[in-house]
Amino acid sequence: MKFWFNGEIFDSEDKVIAVNDRAFMLGDGLFETVLARDSVPLRLSAHLQRLRQGAELIELQIGVNNDQLSAAFALVLDANKVNKGVLRLTASRGTCERGLLPSPQNEPCLAITVAPVPPFKGEANAIIATSFRRDELSPLSRCKTLSYLGNIVARQEAESQGANEALLLNTQKRLAEATISNLFLVVGNRILTPPVTDGALPGTIRGVILAEFGAEEKELPVNTLDRASEGFLTNSLGIRPLLQVDGKTIGNGTIGPITSHLMSVLP
Amino acid sequence: MKFWFNGEIFDSEDKVIAVNDRAFMLGDGLFETVLARDSVPLRLSAHLQRLRQGAELIELQIGVNNDQLSAAFALVLDANKVNKGVLRLTASRGTCERGLLPSPQNEPCLAITVAPVPPFKGEANAIIATSFRRDELSPLSRCKTLSYLGNIVARQEAESQGANEALLLNTQKRLAEATISNLFLVVGNRILTPPVTDGALPGTIRGVILAEFGAEEKELPVNTLDRASEGFLTNSLGIRPLLQVDGKTIGNGTIGPITSHLMSVLP
Repeated sequence: MKFWFNGEIFDSEDKVIAVNDRAFMLGDGLFETVLARDSVPLRLSAHLQRLRQGAELIELQIGVNNDQLSAAFALVLDANKVNKGVLRLTASRGTCERGLLPSPQNEPCLAITVAPVPPFKGEANAIIATSFRRDELSPLSRCKTLSYLGNIVARQEAESQGANEALLLNTQKRLAEATISNLFLVVGNRILTPPVTDGALPGTIRGVILAEFGAEEKELPVNTLDRASEGFLTNSLGIRPLLQVDGKTIGNGTIGPITSHLMSVLP
Repeated sequence: MKFWFNGEIFDSEDKVIAVNDRAFMLGDGLFETVLARDSVPLRLSAHLQRLRQGAELIELQIGVNNDQLSAAFALVLDANKVNKGVLRLTASRGTCERGLLPSPQNEPCLAITVAPVPPFKGEANAIIATSFRRDELSPLSRCKTLSYLGNIVARQEAESQGANEALLLNTQKRLAEATISNLFLVVGNRILTPPVTDGALPGTIRGVILAEFGAEEKELPVNTLDRASEGFLTNSLGIRPLLQVDGKTIGNGTIGPITSHLMSVLP
């Protein structure tokens, strides 16, 4: 697949990243994953808004405006002659001398790639990760950062236990999210999701479900899982039913009506 | 400066990293910083041991043995015609398809760079970071991972407050380390440093001070700073006096005798 890098289109085998790029060396940057359908990147403005907020927090200068980024996403789809796919924008702070403190005037490296939309991965059978927690007090928990190894290790932990996803707790032992998605539980008639202040990334689809489908932010102790009739995970690629956690079913262990409805209308 | 990458020497301007490299995309990898003096990388075996332990934990296959890595470090010094410098080994899991779970057989990207030994940065005037905490329960806190953005943000927080370093607490509000170094406090006649189980990275120089200079691991609540007569920070490049934290001096605010002695004999 061809990709866009700092204003130009490259072939997939082209090497464009310097060995002293701060994303490569220090996980110093941000990313966004955006679903494209009918040549339209869905909810792009929400993704770019989160990107900008993260960039402001970590003092990374993106250097191009949203129209330019929007055009770059379109160029990637066009260059690959696809009208759907999973777009990913990676924003690195760029190359650096040694040291943690970036120079105030970074020259960012921006890359946009596209991959085929993955097939539905089936229902989620999760564990609760012990290898990694969300730090609900860190402002970084509001950003989609490139420093993602904790999530990878949690996902590996799930795999080692025969599960296919991991739920992440925060440091107060409350549910925060999953490794690549937000968590929702249906309790009684309420659709609940952990608040951002509990370490949930403010996901785009999460935002839609809060704004348009009556969901509510609520602190969720682990035992909320026992009371839930449905569970599902959301990210920009879609809704995934969560049927089991640590070997115990959620509700009756089948896809519930709210999950089913959301799967049919989102993303 | 020339660098080594997967067995070959490249010029600094050569681009060798793919856009879908997992270090670039996900901070998925490890690094080591090694001081070289008289063409000898100091304590290389301790660095490579930590690298191997981290690699085992995150299931990253390094693919070359320690003799080969040792030869590669020598090649980098030789290619740059220097006999001293700061070597850095970056181990990425390599390129990948989309998704967090790596393939079991990764083909790692290994890079070794060298930079001039930085001048002594002066005494440390630190804050206690509020933007990032060490997760003492995560096995990742024992590894030197590429997912380093939390440390960067803590360092930026220090800078914004006119300080030049940040101490990191763990989630129990005890002292863990600093952004690029381990922390030692002298209390009474004892040289104390936070235990690995409190979120301290097992640093190489830290190990030497524990093994050869009578230091002890001890849980350090923040108020230990008030009782300390000396403080210092250590990493593979050396010892740095810590004279002030959050505007309060440690001891009488000058470099104490133990710090001074260690600076003269280490690294």
